[in-house]
Amino acid sequence: MTLINQLTAQDEFIGFYLIRELTVKQTNGNPPKDYFDITLSDSSGQLNAKFWDVSKTDKETFFPMGLVKVQGLAHTYRDRLQVKIMKMRLANEEDGVSLTDFIRAAPVRPVDLVHAIRQAAAGIADPQLRSIVEFCIRKVEDKLMHYPAAKSHHHNYYAGLAYHMTRMLEIGDFLCRQRPFLNPDLLKAGIILHDIAKTEEMTAELGIVFDYSVTGKLIGHISMASNWITEAAIRLDIAPESPKVVALQHLVLSHHNLGEWGSPVQPQTAEAVALHHIDAMDAKLQMVEDALDTTPDAEEWTPFIRGLENKAIYRQKL
Amino acid sequence: MTLINQLTAQDEFIGFYLIRELTVKQTNGNPPKDYFDITLSDSSGQLNAKFWDVSKTDKETFFPMGLVKVQGLAHTYRDRLQVKIMKMRLANEEDGVSLTDFIRAAPVRPVDLVHAIRQAAAGIADPQLRSIVEFCIRKVEDKLMHYPAAKSHHHNYYAGLAYHMTRMLEIGDFLCRQRPFLNPDLLKAGIILHDIAKTEEMTAELGIVFDYSVTGKLIGHISMASNWITEAAIRLDIAPESPKVVALQHLVLSHHNLGEWGSPVQPQTAEAVALHHIDAMDAKLQMVEDALDTTPDAEEWTPFIRGLENKAIYRQKL
Amino acid sequence: MTLINQLTAQDEFIGFYLIRELTVKQTNGNPPKDYFDITLSDSSGQLNAKFWDVSKTDKETFFPMGLVKVQGLAHTYRDRLQVKIMKMRLANEEDGVSLTDFIRAAPVRPVDLVHAIRQAAAGIADPQLRSIVEFCIRKVEDKLMHYPAAKSHHHNYYAGLAYHMTRMLEIGDFLCRQRPFLNPDLLKAGIILHDIAKTEEMTAELGIVFDYSVTGKLIGHISMASNWITEAAIRLDIAPESPKVVALQHLVLSHHNLGEWGSPVQPQTAEAVALHHIDAMDAKLQMVEDALDTTPDAEEWTPFIRGLENKAIYRQKL
Amino acid sequence: MTLINQLTAQDEFIGFYLIRELTVKQTNGNPPKDYFDITLSDSSGQLNAKFWDVSKTDKETFFPMGLVKVQGLAHTYRDRLQVKIMKMRLANEEDGVSLTDFIRAAPVRPVDLVHAIRQAAAGIADPQLRSIVEFCIRKVEDKLMHYPAAKSHHHNYYAGLAYHMTRMLEIGDFLCRQRPFLNPDLLKAGIILHDIAKTEEMTAELGIVFDYSVTGKLIGHISMASNWITEAAIRLDIAPESPKVVALQHLVLSHHNLGEWGSPVQPQTAEAVALHHIDAMDAKLQMVEDALDTTPDAEEWTPFIRGLENKAIYRQKL
Amino acid sequence: MTLINQLTAQDEFIGFYLIRELTVKQTNGNPPKDYFDITLSDSSGQLNAKFWDVSKTDKETFFPMGLVKVQGLAHTYRDRLQVKIMKMRLANEEDGVSLTDFIRAAPVRPVDLVHAIRQAAAGIADPQLRSIVEFCIRKVEDKLMHYPAAKSHHHNYYAGLAYHMTRMLEIGDFLCRQRPFLNPDLLKAGIILHDIAKTEEMTAELGIVFDYSVTGKLIGHISMASNWITEAAIRLDIAPESPKVVALQHLVLSHHNLGEWGSPVQPQTAEAVALHHIDAMDAKLQMVEDALDTTPDAEEWTPFIRGLENKAIYRQKL
Amino acid sequence: MTLINQLTAQDEFIGFYLIRELTVKQTNGNPPKDYFDITLSDSSGQLNAKFWDVSKTDKETFFPMGLVKVQGLAHTYRDRLQVKIMKMRLANEEDGVSLTDFIRAAPVRPVDLVHAIRQAAAGIADPQLRSIVEFCIRKVEDKLMHYPAAKSHHHNYYAGLAYHMTRMLEIGDFLCRQRPFLNPDLLKAGIILHDIAKTEEMTAELGIVFDYSVTGKLIGHISMASNWITEAAIRLDIAPESPKVVALQHLVLSHHNLGEWGSPVQPQTAEAVALHHIDAMDAKLQMVEDALDTTPDAEEWTPFIRGLENKAIYRQKL
Repeated sequence: MTLINQLTAQDEFIGFYLIRELTVKQTNGNPPKDYFDITLSDSSGQLNAKFWDVSKTDKETFFPMGLVKVQGLAHTYRDRLQVKIMKMRLANEEDGVSLTDFIRAAPVRPVDLVHAIRQAAAGIADPQLRSIVEFCIRKVEDKLMHYPAAKSHHHNYYAGLAYHMTRMLEIGDFLCRQRPFLNPDLLKAGIILHDIAKTEEMTAELGIVFDYSVTGKLIGHISMASNWITEAAIRLDIAPESPKVVALQHLVLSHHNLGEWGSPVQPQTAEAVALHHIDAMDAKLQMVEDALDTTPDAEEWTPFIRGLENKAIYRQKL
Repeated sequence: MTLINQLTAQDEFIGFYLIRELTVKQTNGNPPKDYFDITLSDSSGQLNAKFWDVSKTDKETFFPMGLVKVQGLAHTYRDRLQVKIMKMRLANEEDGVSLTDFIRAAPVRPVDLVHAIRQAAAGIADPQLRSIVEFCIRKVEDKLMHYPAAKSHHHNYYAGLAYHMTRMLEIGDFLCRQRPFLNPDLLKAGIILHDIAKTEEMTAELGIVFDYSVTGKLIGHISMASNWITEAAIRLDIAPESPKVVALQHLVLSHHNLGEWGSPVQPQTAEAVALHHIDAMDAKLQMVEDALDTTPDAEEWTPFIRGLENKAIYRQKL
Repeated sequence: MTLINQLTAQDEFIGFYLIRELTVKQTNGNPPKDYFDITLSDSSGQLNAKFWDVSKTDKETFFPMGLVKVQGLAHTYRDRLQVKIMKMRLANEEDGVSLTDFIRAAPVRPVDLVHAIRQAAAGIADPQLRSIVEFCIRKVEDKLMHYPAAKSHHHNYYAGLAYHMTRMLEIGDFLCRQRPFLNPDLLKAGIILHDIAKTEEMTAELGIVFDYSVTGKLIGHISMASNWITEAAIRLDIAPESPKVVALQHLVLSHHNLGEWGSPVQPQTAEAVALHHIDAMDAKLQMVEDALDTTPDAEEWTPFIRGLENKAIYRQKL
Repeated sequence: MTLINQLTAQDEFIGFYLIRELTVKQTNGNPPKDYFDITLSDSSGQLNAKFWDVSKTDKETFFPMGLVKVQGLAHTYRDRLQVKIMKMRLANEEDGVSLTDFIRAAPVRPVDLVHAIRQAAAGIADPQLRSIVEFCIRKVEDKLMHYPAAKSHHHNYYAGLAYHMTRMLEIGDFLCRQRPFLNPDLLKAGIILHDIAKTEEMTAELGIVFDYSVTGKLIGHISMASNWITEAAIRLDIAPESPKVVALQHLVLSHHNLGEWGSPVQPQTAEAVALHHIDAMDAKLQMVEDALDTTPDAEEWTPFIRGLENKAIYRQKL
Repeated sequence: MTLINQLTAQDEFIGFYLIRELTVKQTNGNPPKDYFDITLSDSSGQLNAKFWDVSKTDKETFFPMGLVKVQGLAHTYRDRLQVKIMKMRLANEEDGVSLTDFIRAAPVRPVDLVHAIRQAAAGIADPQLRSIVEFCIRKVEDKLMHYPAAKSHHHNYYAGLAYHMTRMLEIGDFLCRQRPFLNPDLLKAGIILHDIAKTEEMTAELGIVFDYSVTGKLIGHISMASNWITEAAIRLDIAPESPKVVALQHLVLSHHNLGEWGSPVQPQTAEAVALHHIDAMDAKLQMVEDALDTTPDAEEWTPFIRGLENKAIYRQKL
Repeated sequence: MTLINQLTAQDEFIGFYLIRELTVKQTNGNPPKDYFDITLSDSSGQLNAKFWDVSKTDKETFFPMGLVKVQGLAHTYRDRLQVKIMKMRLANEEDGVSLTDFIRAAPVRPVDLVHAIRQAAAGIADPQLRSIVEFCIRKVEDKLMHYPAAKSHHHNYYAGLAYHMTRMLEIGDFLCRQRPFLNPDLLKAGIILHDIAKTEEMTAELGIVFDYSVTGKLIGHISMASNWITEAAIRLDIAPESPKVVALQHLVLSHHNLGEWGSPVQPQTAEAVALHHIDAMDAKLQMVEDALDTTPDAEEWTPFIRGLENKAIYRQKL
């Protein structure tokens, strides 16, 4: 079975794929005929595909996020590889394929990632900070098991958000050992809370962001998390203006560093400065690693990466 | 009694003034002698003054925010007018002067301003929006009676914040009549809440901002107000994620329009767009009016005004 | 007769529409055949349409800005709704349709708008200011009856420019009452003159801007209006350097507020500051209102609006 | 007689100097005494000076822009060289000194500069362009003999504006020979008109700008020159909207290249692009030359130059 | 034979052209058929062309950069002119056409340009500066004969780089005569070296840039030239930290003027300031001249030019 | 003996201090008298001091960077603490004080820092990379023992540069373990070389930068290091255009990330992205730590820190 990122023009192939997007369209002929404009994907990438002359049954059978067995032909159309689907049927139980094999995912099991995050939260010594963090985790624990960290910017895959948190916790641990003037409780709490409201800011399934929620657009994950901290404090009988609550809110609100990047205040505590740099370092290096991983080995350069000043990365081989 | 903005070099004068700031300093002589470096003010402006050779009693008598009777001499020092204080004593009851006569204040009585704001709040038809707005007003009602709207940017005087709100409510009323597609409830609520947390962001007395609070620096009045709305909702048993709560938070969070001006999200509802423009129009026109008012009539140009692209305003007389 | 903004995929329909644009193209076949690529419009919006296999007669019959009766089929092509025209003929007198029914227009009759503008001009107390304003109005009065205020930015429809002026005059009236330090003569004059040269900067018909004139590109409406004021002064025997002329030119030149927005000087009089904010408020709120009006009711969000920091507006329903 | 840029700390000296600025101030003593705070200058530079214990007669004798004979002592005060004036009297006829010896001036005689400009204007082949240019020159010919090109930015000395024009005409001549596609008439006209209204934008004497005029602040020299071209056209019976008039206005309006540098339109003709680059090249190279000339030979680096990205220039000696 | 920039829709034509790009593609039919997507060019411009139903032999015959004789039909497709190729064969010896007739080139023979550059280098009086410059010229002399100065920005044609250098040398000569304080040796050296490493930064043939080299992307021509100067110094036994080496490196490193334009340091010597302005003036005026030359005479406006603030240039005819 | 950061107004004290700066000045009296304007410092901070009525002997005795015993009085002058020196003499051998006790220094011994750097270099597996790195270290090894990393931005103290490198090497080690796709040889080399040319860019003694060198200003440490790598390659017989040399130069040239921050190219390899983030993280966190350390414990907020968006840091105590 050929992986999508290994298809080349003129390949005929048979294999299982995920229908990531599917739209019924009409040809420009007279009379126009219906066809499917499809995005096929597997764990290695995705491709545009056409399925011509679809029947009424086809239209009742195939939907986005369905697994299918495809016989197809890869060819070049307007400089890009495209698939012409010759035959297609839904995958069934006997095929022994499972949806999660067809999506990109963090390289660590979600259950292990969420466990690491809960462990870190449990390790916060201050009971008030700990209880606020745990309140927020409980609010979205299910989503933490699978949410990506962004639509496309970075960690945009299954459990990408939890993976981002976990790696940041590792860097945070190292930094607290290297620089004892940092408060480990605050840094852990900041790492866990900084992006936690992305779970409500975006709607995602299988690691794929489909849209932003109304609340996500109108408030944004930064202010949403700040509001959650207020809510946690009130529900847990902690004064919402007390220094610990303010400290947590400051961490969350300032972590994008600059107003034009969405932070209404700039980092003004040691831990807030550290949080911003840990976040940037993990996000940027993961972008680099993921870009190199998903670029064919034969290519010297990755595609341009928006989050890296729109530069391509060179695959250095010395 | 000469008003401060009417003193000119070589004037000898006697009058009552407010000591706005007072520091004990030493001359550079050998031995150094103590003197007072003072900011004298009245309702028309302020001036630097020196009181030489102060005694131990003087140091126990005079403090910032005290009213004093001064005999002085105005002279020019390094291109600026300065006062040499010849004699000074504390004002007493017989003098019949009152502190509030010596500070700049909004041109409407605070009690009337706060009444107008409460009336506007009471006029919000939707009971949930109304109750959240009234919860926030109750939180800071005392401070609304006297807080300025800013340290120096605009409406920086006694009850300046309430005056800003009241004038904005007038513009809002006009706009809702001119453009019925705007929701008057939301616009009123947004106007009342947009700057309300400035009362906790800054520490002020008599219309003078002395500093920003720790919470003010770490969170900022925009996010503080958003958190207050969450708190109000929870205390009033309204779901903190419900559309009305989000709508109010959106108004507050977006009212500075751009990230680099401190808003984590940009206006995305009709009322949020309106709120931003009402706020800008009132603030800028008040800066112009106040600058013209406090510039001596003989001057064609006001000083440079930071909030107006650092331009001076020309006193047009056609 | 179905309005364009109510068509959905698979609708077959008959109705009258305006041909807003028409190009003869060839298919990619061998031999290539001619077809029409058409933009159909009515007062509710516009759509791309194709008319296949056009004859020599067709090419001599149909032209842009012609009214036609169309029998068509709406279908989706590349994610957008498109019309396939089955039959088409020119509208004739018996059809009883009139061009002006098919274009977007200001919600007030042009004759009333221009009347209001002339009334405002007549209400300028100062005879020199009034005569300069009236000179400029006379220069372009015909165009004021129908010109839009912009190609697409805001008020981009029949009589949009006059509607913009009229609404701004209403806001100006309110502000002069609220803040008596503003000079109503100057504010009225500034509102009427600020965009008046757009009538020569752009070429427009039926509220649609087709292009910018050479003078419009090389000089721009801001400097053109400044030159008109000089011309008016000379023709009316007013010294072109006199304070009133300079005051009017300052209003026009500064109304975009910043150099990067096209103003060579920044507002430095009270009325210039007011003019900029009135202009911004009216333009932005009209963008919001028009976007909400032309977005199907079922849509929660308008398209992205370039003039509003490229944000979409949420249709708030509380 | 010691030139000002050759004084060093502890020098006692006698010489003639110009009083560029003079203010009467009071010492901080009790009673305060009057003294003069003076800026002394000659053709080589300027220095701050104090004249203590001035008499009533002194105050009636000495004024800004007067020539004086001074006996003084140079010393260091707060890291800067300062002069203590021991004796001072007005220069008289017998002294044989003349004001123009004491100011910085262009290295070419004003009469020759203005002659060169008039020659260039006379050399414009097109009679309409020529007559407009000559109309504008006539308007300000007296001021061209002595005006500087700016307050401090570049060519800030006697006849600096005419020197700037003349040098630009030389570069323009060269470019038209190197690149025949450029229109020499337009380029000459653009060079002569581009900054001509600086003569009314600023008030200057002896090559020193004292202030900006009200019209200069409210309109700016760019729009003033555009208005003058309109005026010239009308007075000379040329249609103010004719292509030649528009071409000249485009040159003037666009010569600062970008909106944030004050140009309401950007260069869109070959000559306008050339004009901008000739202007920039001459202004920047003159800044460099003047900075090197007025920096003591012993110094490797000039002071920081605002117009050169605030960089200092290194005096290269290879 | 019709030049490409003179073809209009519906023209049938026969002529010789260069295949600048060629890709084999498939039609969207069932089964898909192969066709050529071709960029045809001659010295006057280029056009997209399609050659349908290509055979196996065709695919073995036609390649990019081949000269062909074409019988074709020009038609409009999606608003742009396109060519449908009816017949096509390779050019042969009898046809008497030569590749260099079909590419855009500088208006001066390469051999003359390189001669002028070598003359200028030979005219550098200082032996060390001269030998470093000549070392760098020798390194890339072959490429100087044909390299363009950029992919598309300016001088993007055969020998464009040498033409750019030569014209800059002319301006530099003029400036050194006009302003004797400039050092002609340094200015000549700076002009010759400033872009010389573009020959290794980009890969180009026949004046067409195909790509950037890995070293070009990772280091850039500015730092490459700086490194070459270090190399030249060491190979020529000149101390790499000596003032002359530093002076040359400063010229090269600073010539883009600002950090955001790629210069790690800003101009800080007279010659560096001059070099930047000579470079900008030549590049911008050449963009204007080339745009006017390659825009059909009937067009009033050139296309938008990225290097000129994305403005179009108006073809002024007075 | 009182540390400088523990002095308060009115303290009389005796102790040993370093004269960091000393200027002879004159009082404004008649006749003026000489006095010393001194910057006193110790390891805890620095203060301005005056020593009045200095004798000829004093002027021959006291110089910058001399150790002195001082009897003084601390007092407030213009809102800042200042010292009036009553008595002062040079420290002598019996006093048992040593210069290095009076300067700020990295918290690790220089010899240990340089040892760690040499160890890291020795650990580079690739012999060519290792030999280039060691060549550059040898060039400046002496200076590495004491140079600061910057004039004031960060690590501005004795051996600050080596401390910066060492801490970055620790972070680099951690990252290479966390993310095996990074090449440890390149990362180590990049960390050691990125700022190494600061030793020639600035002139420093005892951890204090006095100035930038001419080469430092004209070339900058980034391009200087790139040139050193070229030099090292040539001297070590490695081709200066070989991939390893280019890889090292890319790391150095891109480490400031953006053109406006001084990098002529942006990071385009995984290690270059990592290097930038390690550098930023170490520099910023050290600024925070140093600011908190040097701010009196009683102060809640540090001064504003230019390198942290000009924000003050709050001393969080939960």
